[in-house]
Amino acid sequence: MMGKNRIETFFDGVLAIIITIMVLEMKVPHGGGFDTLSPLVPVVLSYVLSFIYLGIYWNNHHHMMHTCERVTGSMLWANLHLLFWLSLIPFTTGWMGENHFAAQPAALYGFVLLMAAIAYWILQQRIIASQGEGSILKQAIGNDWKGKASPLLYVTGVLLAFVSQWLAVAVYVAVALMWLVPDRRIERMLSANET
Amino acid sequence: MMGKNRIETFFDGVLAIIITIMVLEMKVPHGGGFDTLSPLVPVVLSYVLSFIYLGIYWNNHHHMMHTCERVTGSMLWANLHLLFWLSLIPFTTGWMGENHFAAQPAALYGFVLLMAAIAYWILQQRIIASQGEGSILKQAIGNDWKGKASPLLYVTGVLLAFVSQWLAVAVYVAVALMWLVPDRRIERMLSANET
Amino acid sequence: MMGKNRIETFFDGVLAIIITIMVLEMKVPHGGGFDTLSPLVPVVLSYVLSFIYLGIYWNNHHHMMHTCERVTGSMLWANLHLLFWLSLIPFTTGWMGENHFAAQPAALYGFVLLMAAIAYWILQQRIIASQGEGSILKQAIGNDWKGKASPLLYVTGVLLAFVSQWLAVAVYVAVALMWLVPDRRIERMLSANET
Amino acid sequence: MMGKNRIETFFDGVLAIIITIMVLEMKVPHGGGFDTLSPLVPVVLSYVLSFIYLGIYWNNHHHMMHTCERVTGSMLWANLHLLFWLSLIPFTTGWMGENHFAAQPAALYGFVLLMAAIAYWILQQRIIASQGEGSILKQAIGNDWKGKASPLLYVTGVLLAFVSQWLAVAVYVAVALMWLVPDRRIERMLSANET
Repeated sequence: MMGKNRIETFFDGVLAIIITIMVLEMKVPHGGGFDTLSPLVPVVLSYVLSFIYLGIYWNNHHHMMHTCERVTGSMLWANLHLLFWLSLIPFTTGWMGENHFAAQPAALYGFVLLMAAIAYWILQQRIIASQGEGSILKQAIGNDWKGKASPLLYVTGVLLAFVSQWLAVAVYVAVALMWLVPDRRIERMLSANET
Repeated sequence: MMGKNRIETFFDGVLAIIITIMVLEMKVPHGGGFDTLSPLVPVVLSYVLSFIYLGIYWNNHHHMMHTCERVTGSMLWANLHLLFWLSLIPFTTGWMGENHFAAQPAALYGFVLLMAAIAYWILQQRIIASQGEGSILKQAIGNDWKGKASPLLYVTGVLLAFVSQWLAVAVYVAVALMWLVPDRRIERMLSANET
Repeated sequence: MMGKNRIETFFDGVLAIIITIMVLEMKVPHGGGFDTLSPLVPVVLSYVLSFIYLGIYWNNHHHMMHTCERVTGSMLWANLHLLFWLSLIPFTTGWMGENHFAAQPAALYGFVLLMAAIAYWILQQRIIASQGEGSILKQAIGNDWKGKASPLLYVTGVLLAFVSQWLAVAVYVAVALMWLVPDRRIERMLSANET
Repeated sequence: MMGKNRIETFFDGVLAIIITIMVLEMKVPHGGGFDTLSPLVPVVLSYVLSFIYLGIYWNNHHHMMHTCERVTGSMLWANLHLLFWLSLIPFTTGWMGENHFAAQPAALYGFVLLMAAIAYWILQQRIIASQGEGSILKQAIGNDWKGKASPLLYVTGVLLAFVSQWLAVAVYVAVALMWLVPDRRIERMLSANET
């Protein structure tokens, strides 16, 4: 049996590096005046958005793994699959930022978020399957409306990017805010189970 | 309940990467003589200053988390918020170093230190709030004069940068020295509590 | 005695960074259209292949260390030796991707995989030797046909690269698929031992 | 009391990143032929040397911390001081490699090794001091001839670099080989103490 501890550590390690590598896209400008920073404003804004998304993933992954007792081979690969899509975020963040939120980079940004959301869902399903009947995680997520709404919203965002990139970005910000509200479902369920 | 262990690990991971990424700003020069290193001197100096600051944050964060028994959702986000500001330090360090401590980069450097100090204070408040009456952390920090003086000093530094950048840098160095003196308050308090 | 925990942590840490550093080879293009992404397609494909290989190494290393009770000095160095070859993968991945899977980069890519496979085999032998008679790991890997076939296939791939690079890449993909099938040998053996 | 665990984790984290960041100095060449790799040969050789040095530090740090029961504030800073000098190794490695082991880069390379050796010695002294009379570490290192010889050899290497850089490199290789022989002193001492 593989310890879930090592999965968590690896996930956290990769996530920590992904977050920090994004900063490398903020290239130090050659001049020393504040005006040389102005091209960086969209880069910083897209960094903030991605930072929040990665924070949400870290947070939710943590809660999800908490319900998990045993680790299977398919969970390992589902976890790596999720990391694969998350690892593309520095690239899409940089591309969107440097092109001042142009339509096509904004669409690609949403596409990678979509794939990450699907990968997260797959991992969640593998954990639920491993827990069998009466899965704590299954009870904890309930109808999982956030998990179901997010992919639809990302698809909407990707399509909207070709109408107006700002609508797309507005959708991505909205989804982030939706998740930012701490998800007390799993915590509540766990406390209930402990009683 | 989230284990505080995973917060510490994530904080340490991101901090380790931030520290090491700063080194990437020291671009290997093309020539092979010592004279090609001279433009790097201010880059190295700003690296040393930031290295010490990040060491202080690592140290203090460690002591603070030590008093912490349970982790809440708001603490998680306060922790990520702190990491966000710390993650900007390689950028401000590089900008200040490459521009030989020019006024505006020196001001921005202080501004990010200020925001990190505020983020640290917020995290501290979240932990104290979670510990309720008789919070160990609250007792440990006492009147917290260092925590209160630092933001004021950073603001002073930012403003002084426009008079003379060397005054600003002097203030940043002074604050670092002030913290470098090991903070025995929490250790003392913990030992007292164990008795 | 050295704890095996610290070996695992270090291996995971370096692997996490290797994986994420590969992403840095995907340079953000200057234009904002999808057409600017087309030169990146081979870079992404070689990234996917290497990501899977590193995932396999992480997975197998984990299983192997699981059978390991005590850590010797020679295991430490065998582990570092493996990490050395794995650390070259971002370079060979980038070179192969940027040259659209040209013959010589494809050959070098296979050579580094070969050396990593040999390094892995050496580490495996050190662990078996340390376990003495009735080594769990020795029983678990059985005749180890995958471990024996892989180096031969890599050599074939390297040679085929000079006939057609696509044959070489096909071999590397085939080896990855061969390993991707979860290796239940060790898990089975361990469960049997626990009974 | 600070747990020594977090020091080890932080040290390992930073070391893992330092090792992997060195690979970034091996810039992917633009052509796709083996001949484009020839300028990289000295870069790879200096990478191998530094990889071995960092492996030795990881190994020895591990053994040293193993003897350590309690962590003091001064040990924390001694540890960070050591990491500071080690963090400069990717820079000196890249500079030496890109300039084909020219005299001045070879001298700087040795200087940073010297400072790291001194920093390691300081950390060792802090641990011995914290253990008081009958320090296990003090007994374990015995007369510590390797620890005393290394700084002298580094100084010799630095000076020799101005006569012939190859003599300097030969000294650095010799010191690495001297340490590569696993240091059984501490292991032996610990086994003896356990009996």
